[in-house]
Amino acid sequence: MRYELYYWPSIQGRGEFVRLALEEGKAHYVNVARQSGTGEMMRLTEGAGLKTVPYAPPFLKAGKLVIGQSANILLYLGARHGLAPKPEAGKLWVHQLQLTIADFVKEIDDTHHPVAASLYYEDQKPEAKRYAEHFLRDRVPKYLGYFERVIKASGGPFLNGKKLTYADLSLFQLVEGLRYAFPQAAKRVEKKVPRCVDVRDRVAARPRIKAYLKSKRRIAFNESGIFRRYEELDA
Amino acid sequence: MRYELYYWPSIQGRGEFVRLALEEGKAHYVNVARQSGTGEMMRLTEGAGLKTVPYAPPFLKAGKLVIGQSANILLYLGARHGLAPKPEAGKLWVHQLQLTIADFVKEIDDTHHPVAASLYYEDQKPEAKRYAEHFLRDRVPKYLGYFERVIKASGGPFLNGKKLTYADLSLFQLVEGLRYAFPQAAKRVEKKVPRCVDVRDRVAARPRIKAYLKSKRRIAFNESGIFRRYEELDA
Repeated sequence: MRYELYYWPSIQGRGEFVRLALEEGKAHYVNVARQSGTGEMMRLTEGAGLKTVPYAPPFLKAGKLVIGQSANILLYLGARHGLAPKPEAGKLWVHQLQLTIADFVKEIDDTHHPVAASLYYEDQKPEAKRYAEHFLRDRVPKYLGYFERVIKASGGPFLNGKKLTYADLSLFQLVEGLRYAFPQAAKRVEKKVPRCVDVRDRVAARPRIKAYLKSKRRIAFNESGIFRRYEELDA
Repeated sequence: MRYELYYWPSIQGRGEFVRLALEEGKAHYVNVARQSGTGEMMRLTEGAGLKTVPYAPPFLKAGKLVIGQSANILLYLGARHGLAPKPEAGKLWVHQLQLTIADFVKEIDDTHHPVAASLYYEDQKPEAKRYAEHFLRDRVPKYLGYFERVIKASGGPFLNGKKLTYADLSLFQLVEGLRYAFPQAAKRVEKKVPRCVDVRDRVAARPRIKAYLKSKRRIAFNESGIFRRYEELDA
């Protein structure tokens, strides 16, 4: 099947968690808005007669299905592309990890937009500074420490044990993004989570991911996405 | 099966979305921490030799499974208790709605804790005031307006059409919670989302939910939960 991925064309954002799975899973897909603009994407989020109208991008067209919410898209793709266990218990567990990753992603996004997504960063800088201090001191070690414990309890080297899942691809993206946005803080915390860093390295070394990261399909991190490098926040 | 629900004993919180499904779904369950304290819950979140250690409550013990993340628990319970479609397309769609509800819940939680969950509300009041203004003006109408469109597109009266799902139970909880926390703002916005209010009324009138709401099992809203009544935020 040829999937259509709908997401903002100039950022990695939440779409990237889906893209990494599509790439590693050898899926045939097209980034619709990067190829033909955001018109059709906007039309679909506005309804367009669709019963399963998505609240926001990313969403994936898979035949007749239109699936929104990145973790939900990964739930759908997982077993189909060898990126999640097929038995229910394993499927739920990997999805649970992805939902915790999604919670973390939202908190990362809030580092530069703690008051409102509709305001510019420049209009919420004092709040962002205060938020980011707590975030880097408490939340990053808590989330990454959790994933570290999960890898350990699984027997490793991945979150679910011997076999890579889409949650590992997302953990790679988290480590990469934190390195980009908060280089100082990332350096500190990574010392305490060697297993997470090892997952990052293993994912980066996979042939399909390696090729993807070098390709033009990988958009560079930038200050319109989730992970933004604002020096003043990296304390 | 006798389920064990683990959640903080004195708040509705995220556990309530699960409880409403257990109640409506005629499930046999016990609120572990309300009966025997939080000891076992803390032990499980700290690992306790568990491979699928949850990041945080709520989590559900279902036989050998330990399932975390409220939307994931509902995904598991849905089809088993007649609260979600069994075919994959419908299952994914109702789950997608639940994930959007979970995003909304996080934003509601942030109205009183926009800087850090680890700080008291009293230590982030100016930020909370500013956050809540944007939240009530932009986000509440956007989320509820979305659910209103979904109900309409489904043919109604519920989010997924003729049959109630766990997402409707959660929408009930959202409307109830907004009424509690932001009575002024809720009055304003409800005029624009009659279908959401109708879902709330239909859920409230269901015999099992009605009995539950009157029982001692339903914890009252209070200022330790997600929905908190702070008059200064309800503008």
